[in-house]
Amino acid sequence: MKGLLRLLASVALWALAASAQDPLPSWNTGATKARIVRFVAEVTRPGAPHFVPPEQRIAAFDNDGTLWVEQPIYTQFAFTIARVQALAARHPEWKEQQPFQAVLRGDMKALAAGGEREFAQLMMATHAGMDTGEFEGIVTDWIRTAQHPRFHRLYTQCVYQPMLELMAYLRANGFKTYIVSGGGVEFMRPWAGRVYGVPPEQVIGSSIRTRFELRNGRPVLMRLPEVDLIDDKDGKPVGIEKFIGRRPIAAFGNSDGDQQMLEWTAAGPGEHLLLLVHHTDAIREYAYDRGSSVGALDKAWNEARARGWVIVDMKRDWKIIFAN
Amino acid sequence: MKGLLRLLASVALWALAASAQDPLPSWNTGATKARIVRFVAEVTRPGAPHFVPPEQRIAAFDNDGTLWVEQPIYTQFAFTIARVQALAARHPEWKEQQPFQAVLRGDMKALAAGGEREFAQLMMATHAGMDTGEFEGIVTDWIRTAQHPRFHRLYTQCVYQPMLELMAYLRANGFKTYIVSGGGVEFMRPWAGRVYGVPPEQVIGSSIRTRFELRNGRPVLMRLPEVDLIDDKDGKPVGIEKFIGRRPIAAFGNSDGDQQMLEWTAAGPGEHLLLLVHHTDAIREYAYDRGSSVGALDKAWNEARARGWVIVDMKRDWKIIFAN
Repeated sequence: MKGLLRLLASVALWALAASAQDPLPSWNTGATKARIVRFVAEVTRPGAPHFVPPEQRIAAFDNDGTLWVEQPIYTQFAFTIARVQALAARHPEWKEQQPFQAVLRGDMKALAAGGEREFAQLMMATHAGMDTGEFEGIVTDWIRTAQHPRFHRLYTQCVYQPMLELMAYLRANGFKTYIVSGGGVEFMRPWAGRVYGVPPEQVIGSSIRTRFELRNGRPVLMRLPEVDLIDDKDGKPVGIEKFIGRRPIAAFGNSDGDQQMLEWTAAGPGEHLLLLVHHTDAIREYAYDRGSSVGALDKAWNEARARGWVIVDMKRDWKIIFAN
Repeated sequence: MKGLLRLLASVALWALAASAQDPLPSWNTGATKARIVRFVAEVTRPGAPHFVPPEQRIAAFDNDGTLWVEQPIYTQFAFTIARVQALAARHPEWKEQQPFQAVLRGDMKALAAGGEREFAQLMMATHAGMDTGEFEGIVTDWIRTAQHPRFHRLYTQCVYQPMLELMAYLRANGFKTYIVSGGGVEFMRPWAGRVYGVPPEQVIGSSIRTRFELRNGRPVLMRLPEVDLIDDKDGKPVGIEKFIGRRPIAAFGNSDGDQQMLEWTAAGPGEHLLLLVHHTDAIREYAYDRGSSVGALDKAWNEARARGWVIVDMKRDWKIIFAN
């Protein structure tokens, strides 16, 4: 008995040590994980042919569908709907006006039928017209309690544990991790530090214009209903160059919106890690790709296969999706 | 004799130790230096009432006239003139066309008489129409040899040694130093790391728009002749919020173009360091303020005096202007 206990203890200790050494414990052993680890070793080992100095180790992560759930609708869209509802009392005209009427009636079909113009209208009505501090407060309040309709947990708990580990692993190896998202930059910054460990200055996203004003002698930045940058598709390399001024050596996405970011990263010198998360797990999360209205993975998938980019099969490659 | 030598040796050692302890050796002892040192102590001492965690220690530095010489014309304007000259052979029409004609004839009066529209024309003709990598190469080549007309040294050697020490001192105390300049972001990034120790992602400046394109299958970002951001005056707080997403606790400028940046910084909670460099030294550098056509210090000076911001008197406060 004593011998058995001793054996069990050593097995437990060995498992503990092994897990302590594994920087990606939520990733199943296999080709995907091996490629990630090999890339990190190649660019960080001094003297290695593809060694990259720490200040050039830039990693760019898409957010929706890459770091957190984007189904059934983008979280920021859920926020927008909540804001329309919250502001409806101040806008009685919205009852008769599309696309607001559709939101207030919960008519998701009419909403989905609306195009980019309708969507932009909703965004501007809910994201502009206040100063940056006020908007940050609104986001912070909402995200503190808002829950995902299927998983019944906070949106900020619907983040992929394997990707959190990957970000932490890269940072532990001298990488600077950036978020490069089509989502609004000021929608992400208030919580990206706490949830992802990414400080506000490393969050790049779509944005609207702001204007400096003195309000009762106090300087504020008013949010204007005018688009500044759409940080999606070919806007992602534009955003990367504008904000970072150097090219990433690793880029992570999940949809056609990330294709140009991966192309831009791939075109730099040296070794790269280009990775797409493929949503293959309808049971633990969602399964979607080519035909999806949210986060379609089609052209980027073709290119990934043609060029040998890493394609993560969520179902096969990830032990867990969310942390408990 | 031996005693005297021993005494001399100890004095020399003491002086050495004192200078090793002085993080700002090019600053004369006095009220200005004392206020800088006191501010840094107040925000970095754990448990102090105004302690600021390292990640929130953001310092914003103007460039022209604050970190390097801006007289008799902005360095980027000298670059623009050199580019017009270099490109003239490809543009025979410029000989008859203002403002190009004025540049090619060296007619500085006609140039100065031209307004913002003429200036924008020169900028777009010389800063757009190539991809970002090409422009970086052009800047890098020019700045490697271009000399200041009065000091006969490289522009990158016309940087203020006391300000370099101040930046290094702040970084040694956990600050993240940013450049927030009216100058072009892609004009500064190629050399800001080497000269100021500021990496590209911490350089904020005026910018033109870029567009992602595939050129012979290779992704490039083409520079378009369209203004994206004028990072000057009330554009500085806009740039700060857009790029950093948090408010600096220290801001450094020298002209009315920096006033709103200092106001924005001053309006945050806690302690701040707000500082204006006043060019008072016609012998070692230049003396100018209210009436200057370049870097006028007028309204910001009034505000600095009314609100007790630090005003650096170059002649009195700085032991040296440039490093040898």
